[in-house]
Amino acid sequence: MKEFERIAVRHRSGKLEILDQRLLPQEERWLVCDTPQQMVTYIYQLSVRGAPLIGVCAALALAKYAESGADRKAFERQAQSLKEARPTAINLMNALDRMLSSEDPIQEAEAQLKEEIERSEQMGKRGAALIAPGEHILTHCNTGALATPGIGTALAVIIEAHRQGKKIHVFVDETRPLLQGGRLTTYELKKWNIPYTLICDNMAAVLMREGRVQRVLLGADRIALNGDFANKIGSYSAAVNAHYHGVAYHTVAPISTIDVKCPTGRKIPVEQRNPEEVRGVCGAFGSVRWSPEDAPVFNPSFDVTPVDLLTSMIMDVGVFTKEELKQGVLARLCKERGQEICGVL
Amino acid sequence: MKEFERIAVRHRSGKLEILDQRLLPQEERWLVCDTPQQMVTYIYQLSVRGAPLIGVCAALALAKYAESGADRKAFERQAQSLKEARPTAINLMNALDRMLSSEDPIQEAEAQLKEEIERSEQMGKRGAALIAPGEHILTHCNTGALATPGIGTALAVIIEAHRQGKKIHVFVDETRPLLQGGRLTTYELKKWNIPYTLICDNMAAVLMREGRVQRVLLGADRIALNGDFANKIGSYSAAVNAHYHGVAYHTVAPISTIDVKCPTGRKIPVEQRNPEEVRGVCGAFGSVRWSPEDAPVFNPSFDVTPVDLLTSMIMDVGVFTKEELKQGVLARLCKERGQEICGVL
Repeated sequence: MKEFERIAVRHRSGKLEILDQRLLPQEERWLVCDTPQQMVTYIYQLSVRGAPLIGVCAALALAKYAESGADRKAFERQAQSLKEARPTAINLMNALDRMLSSEDPIQEAEAQLKEEIERSEQMGKRGAALIAPGEHILTHCNTGALATPGIGTALAVIIEAHRQGKKIHVFVDETRPLLQGGRLTTYELKKWNIPYTLICDNMAAVLMREGRVQRVLLGADRIALNGDFANKIGSYSAAVNAHYHGVAYHTVAPISTIDVKCPTGRKIPVEQRNPEEVRGVCGAFGSVRWSPEDAPVFNPSFDVTPVDLLTSMIMDVGVFTKEELKQGVLARLCKERGQEICGVL
Repeated sequence: MKEFERIAVRHRSGKLEILDQRLLPQEERWLVCDTPQQMVTYIYQLSVRGAPLIGVCAALALAKYAESGADRKAFERQAQSLKEARPTAINLMNALDRMLSSEDPIQEAEAQLKEEIERSEQMGKRGAALIAPGEHILTHCNTGALATPGIGTALAVIIEAHRQGKKIHVFVDETRPLLQGGRLTTYELKKWNIPYTLICDNMAAVLMREGRVQRVLLGADRIALNGDFANKIGSYSAAVNAHYHGVAYHTVAPISTIDVKCPTGRKIPVEQRNPEEVRGVCGAFGSVRWSPEDAPVFNPSFDVTPVDLLTSMIMDVGVFTKEELKQGVLARLCKERGQEICGVL
């Protein structure tokens, strides 16, 4: 496999390595991935995260496994195990299905890496065209170079608008419980020198009421064929608030995030995570628990936002309005690309 | 001054003491309050909190000061200083204005304590009458015996419904940034043996969408004459979500929370707090910071919910619908009680 170096994943001196995102922004430590099982662990523990990045990293881990001479049966078993590491992130399933049907896993993984980098640039350009100078933009979770092999999804739009000199300002939801906004998006925006303000998730509504947010940009972990999409918990609440206040609301995602087997958001599975994540916080920055140690907890990893709350979906292949999405543009797109879509639509 | 003992404040062996709420639920430690200045500090650092409790504690501190033989000038100066400790909490202003116009500060403070305890019982009974058996109720921040000298405001309704055997379940917003829900409401509900589930603030919308929340009950720090009210940051976001999902939404507050000088919510001042509160968490449970140390932050202590988003306001003196509130029932009520209201209405 060729050598390469991205912000969150690299292949050098024959070693596949991922940046341990649990330690950011306090520490930059790389983890070696010698086996697909290690990648399963890294995905599960969120050392590597972000739907497009997970997909590519899983493909790369499997390519390395093939390179090491694994037989077909073991290869398939590892692919299955990787799929189960993060059930909601459809990019993972799509990436691994392509790996399974490819005759050259190494070439296939390299192609996926290249495609995703290009997709970020496309999303950035298409999205930035919508941004007016001086806009204040709310974002949720992390959707940058730590979530994709490229410069990101929603963050790619923000970065490109900034590059174009649009003088934007970003409000960053801290994104409880795992604080990807407070830890990772702030870290990336600071590196890009883009002005931002960190807020708690429950503060966004007030900013909208005061007219201080013109647009919401966030990512997607899985998109149903009707335009409903799953994303980090809190995205749906932001959608309801944007709708109520007449603020534009967009998900930004590559075409690889579409689940061709999923007709609507009702069919998207949502993982429940460890209750300890809600009872306190835990990371390289330290661990504390403030609630009673046996506090019963609800901790869904994602929520599903219905297409009706979207202004438009910004993809690498185009920007689609709510109306276009509801008329089945995603299914047509996937069909044109030769994908077999579910029979329901 | 007479001896007494409540959950969060007591007067015994001639000492006024407050329970240090910063340390809960990990530790129960009492702080002696020898001077009004100490109470200012306790209010500012949130050792004592909750609008009705702050009002009574400030009155008690001032009564002790009068008892110690303070002259009138010093008494007035300390009253002013106490008012500035928490600008949004109108109970504080109301309690201190009554102290300033009373001829017997000790009797006045004792009367306020007794009144607030009775108000909790009244709110509890009036509110519980609205609750159907088996309801799932969302609450925000802490509104119980740690927020009032009695059993609470919104939590009094929950406690009374539970006492009546209505088999309710409570979803508790953790209430970022200071986690009063995760720390204090869980602690109180556990003591009352009321079933609850702790959630992050951004998860409530999903529960509403799934039909798993029938009612929102929360407190108020200041109520304008038209029914708009200020409460802990996040209350407004919950109101927008409840409105969108058709979920009943009530603020529960004693009449002492009305600001007769405030015609609408636009006139309510909102404090900005220390940015460190958003950059991480800090308390007796430990202190960690996960965001860049210079991260710019927005950290309003409160937000204002307009009366239009209310189903009804549950007070000690009655339950008032949105329509009644908009027709000026609060102004009439205050006039009847001999209070001079602002001239705008």
